[in-house]
Amino acid sequence: MRRFVVETAKHINKRNNVNVSSIHSHLKNRNFIGFYQSFLFSSAFSTSTSTSPMDYSNGSSNPVNLQTINPKVVKCEYAVRGEIVTQAEKLQEQLKKDPESLPFDEILYCNIGNPQSLGQHPITYFREVLALCDHPSILDKSETQGIFSADSIERAWQILDQIPGRATGAYSHSQGIKGLRESIAAGIEARDGFPANANDIFLTDGASPGVHMMMQLLLRSEQDGILCPIPQYPLYSASIALHGGTLVPYYLDEATGWGLEISDLRKQLDDARSKGITVRALVVINPGNPTGQVLAEENQKQIVEFCKKEGLVLLADEVYQENVYVADKQFHSFKKIARASGYGDNDLALVSFQSVSKGYYGECGKRGGYMEVTGFSAEIREQLYKVASVNLCSNITGQILASLVMSPPKVGDESYETYCAEKDGILSSLARRAKTLEDAFNSLEGVTCNKAEGAMYLFPRINLPKKAIQAAEAVPTAPDAFYARRLLEQTGIVVVPGSGFGQVPGTWHIRCTILPQEDKIPAIVERLTEFHKKFMDEFRD
Amino acid sequence: MRRFVVETAKHINKRNNVNVSSIHSHLKNRNFIGFYQSFLFSSAFSTSTSTSPMDYSNGSSNPVNLQTINPKVVKCEYAVRGEIVTQAEKLQEQLKKDPESLPFDEILYCNIGNPQSLGQHPITYFREVLALCDHPSILDKSETQGIFSADSIERAWQILDQIPGRATGAYSHSQGIKGLRESIAAGIEARDGFPANANDIFLTDGASPGVHMMMQLLLRSEQDGILCPIPQYPLYSASIALHGGTLVPYYLDEATGWGLEISDLRKQLDDARSKGITVRALVVINPGNPTGQVLAEENQKQIVEFCKKEGLVLLADEVYQENVYVADKQFHSFKKIARASGYGDNDLALVSFQSVSKGYYGECGKRGGYMEVTGFSAEIREQLYKVASVNLCSNITGQILASLVMSPPKVGDESYETYCAEKDGILSSLARRAKTLEDAFNSLEGVTCNKAEGAMYLFPRINLPKKAIQAAEAVPTAPDAFYARRLLEQTGIVVVPGSGFGQVPGTWHIRCTILPQEDKIPAIVERLTEFHKKFMDEFRD
Repeated sequence: MRRFVVETAKHINKRNNVNVSSIHSHLKNRNFIGFYQSFLFSSAFSTSTSTSPMDYSNGSSNPVNLQTINPKVVKCEYAVRGEIVTQAEKLQEQLKKDPESLPFDEILYCNIGNPQSLGQHPITYFREVLALCDHPSILDKSETQGIFSADSIERAWQILDQIPGRATGAYSHSQGIKGLRESIAAGIEARDGFPANANDIFLTDGASPGVHMMMQLLLRSEQDGILCPIPQYPLYSASIALHGGTLVPYYLDEATGWGLEISDLRKQLDDARSKGITVRALVVINPGNPTGQVLAEENQKQIVEFCKKEGLVLLADEVYQENVYVADKQFHSFKKIARASGYGDNDLALVSFQSVSKGYYGECGKRGGYMEVTGFSAEIREQLYKVASVNLCSNITGQILASLVMSPPKVGDESYETYCAEKDGILSSLARRAKTLEDAFNSLEGVTCNKAEGAMYLFPRINLPKKAIQAAEAVPTAPDAFYARRLLEQTGIVVVPGSGFGQVPGTWHIRCTILPQEDKIPAIVERLTEFHKKFMDEFRD
Repeated sequence: MRRFVVETAKHINKRNNVNVSSIHSHLKNRNFIGFYQSFLFSSAFSTSTSTSPMDYSNGSSNPVNLQTINPKVVKCEYAVRGEIVTQAEKLQEQLKKDPESLPFDEILYCNIGNPQSLGQHPITYFREVLALCDHPSILDKSETQGIFSADSIERAWQILDQIPGRATGAYSHSQGIKGLRESIAAGIEARDGFPANANDIFLTDGASPGVHMMMQLLLRSEQDGILCPIPQYPLYSASIALHGGTLVPYYLDEATGWGLEISDLRKQLDDARSKGITVRALVVINPGNPTGQVLAEENQKQIVEFCKKEGLVLLADEVYQENVYVADKQFHSFKKIARASGYGDNDLALVSFQSVSKGYYGECGKRGGYMEVTGFSAEIREQLYKVASVNLCSNITGQILASLVMSPPKVGDESYETYCAEKDGILSSLARRAKTLEDAFNSLEGVTCNKAEGAMYLFPRINLPKKAIQAAEAVPTAPDAFYARRLLEQTGIVVVPGSGFGQVPGTWHIRCTILPQEDKIPAIVERLTEFHKKFMDEFRD
């Protein structure tokens, strides 16, 4: 995505003589982000003109332009790779050509949860097993024993034996290789203390395709709604837009550490229903993205009760289940909470998403993940299987990695100590980085930042001075995008403006990952602090 | 998918007292498959009842059932993994438990182009490079030189140097790693003799997600149509159904070796337009799936002219570009044909799909592929980039493999000879298998089979006796599904009924891959011949 909502607005506004603040006050009177977007894009749709370079001079006009493509595609937004990132890539090219031309010597991508792009090393054992599965003919060579651990060799054999014909280059069952799903189910059982079934697992290329699949299944028209937290990870708003539904927001409470209040859920549900929206599902992201909160067990129980009572599918984004940094919080899966509350498969439709991209493994590029689908009837499971089968299967490397992540080395395995050291090293360092950055943000004038209890992000609130907001409106751009753009241009630090995630109108945030390597954190803090001071000096009321 | 169109019909028919032949005569009067499907499924939608096992006894009813999910999902069909395959999997389980219980000792999956599942070995060089990229820390160990070729080690270093931070576990650019796209573009240039641009390449998890992305972009409603060959690979009908458009069929002419007649294209286009359908694109599969034909250069020129004149996007499925088995035919990409005809980027919107799953490599499980997107305006390219970015990127292993497939070892490289021997061995064996199976089908009573000039399939026509058709109607099931089911149950050979691909009404086919290993072909021919003779003896008029 190259434009944010407000960025798009600016072009329309220029034509229509509307200023950004009038859009914002318009927004305040709207409960639905969907309404906001359709306001902007229906305007865009009717007023923008084609800028196509093509000349169909033979009489037929260029048939593919912004007016004639699927409007759901036009409406979809994805801020994590938005305009700021495009600008960062340009600056990176500039640095390559002329390292002296900018006031910094590297671009620091704090916009996306992509640990290995910032220097995090993969877990050795996982990569050993993947390499052996990719090229099994070295498995019984003597040299292999010199450069691979004994348990990775054994594990590769085990995995190959689970694959029909040992063919890692064959399409698998459309839900994924049965034996790998069994390992995953065993891992879930060990985690939760409740049974899990390999037939409930759908392996996917990362968590995103699973989310798309559920949206595709549930959304019939814009009269169907999905309850989503605000702020939210924009995969949800994007996939709801692409599948033509309505995002029904509920607000996390910043004042109570991004608490999830059932009373707000209830209010938003009733409000949506009164407008004729059929709410199909509730999205919960735990640990939270972009907020970093970890839900309390009691809160999770309330959410389960709420979904059961209201007949909502619970879509539980649990991709940060390994990323908890505080002693007083612990990750509990929603399935564990539901089963512990006495609810079985017949009581609640629940989908848990997991990914190999997060945790301590951070294997984003491998595109592995799964969804555990429980509480759906056989006929709906058949429909899900059918949709999965149209794309044949997810990639086998990602499938293998998903099984490894859910059943890592055990005490006594040759790799166990190295594995633990790597894992603990990454997680404890992430906890330290989160704390240092949190403290840094909190030390800035007009900035408050909740603790990152989990996940990979901080979402500080920036109380921007009126003069800065006016300067942003003059561009025009969203005030937090204005701040983020300045931050990039003066320090090379890339963050995502809060407007890409949604926020209470009139508040401004940025999302900043905790992922730069630890030795870079002091310089980041220094640059950030200096930048912010200068920014405030320029715009302080 | 567990049900075929006609299978679904049978349940409806039982309720509504409609027989299958009346549906077929209904079909004869319809030009649009979409109409056929919506006829069946709108009936299913209004008459079927929930069979959910869930009991929402607290007052709220089970909110997710066939009546309340997205009807586009219900409508979507994908025959390649349909009911016959489900039955085959059951029989395979039965064989495992009781090998004597069936009249055959193994299931032979000839339903799907999945070479490695049937024993084809991967190309050694490709797997060496993948393993080294998965676990780069062995690259500079002395043991590695003993078990990997020198050029695979060098290539792995080259690829790692193309990846920012050498991080194969990081999300890449949403179109794929720039350096890999450059290798692919160079491979396309070498193939076509015309320039290719890395910025036009979108790396995808196999070809399917690229096709979905284009359908998502182009289809606004069922008033938008896509011209598709009949018979077609059901990814197209499935993705058109999922994205809510209309499939506009054009018929390949079986009598002329599945020839593509421009006059039929024109007729179907005019017919669709007269019904108010906006036709957005033309799908051409070359070499053909399921038909195996390779288009003549002159025919391709006509297709390019037709798309240019009519303002249609040309969606060129070229995943079988390496699979040509006859001396008098050659693969030419549509881009080469267009450029050779003097048409540049401004004249024609053209998308070429390629995959690592087919060719001589057959790396289905790696889910690698790309689309080369030319002739679209910058604003539409931005929209495509945005949609790609919502899923972040395709898997890096698949990306690397796609680059290898498009730039394999060269003369002088250490692996070159082995690579050539493996490649030629696979392709020449496929050609022999195609010929043997083609001859076998043609020797059967009432069966005619066109030559498999390319791809991986034969699509013989079975002139079923009236008594067999009546027996199928009594089940009820489609006559070709009846034949395929019998074939499976008596021989263990799995094929896909032609009704899954579309065929001229009143004709019946099966699709059979040419992929079983060569030493198994004689037994397959024998079983097939014996089965067919018995079948004819039972049903001959």
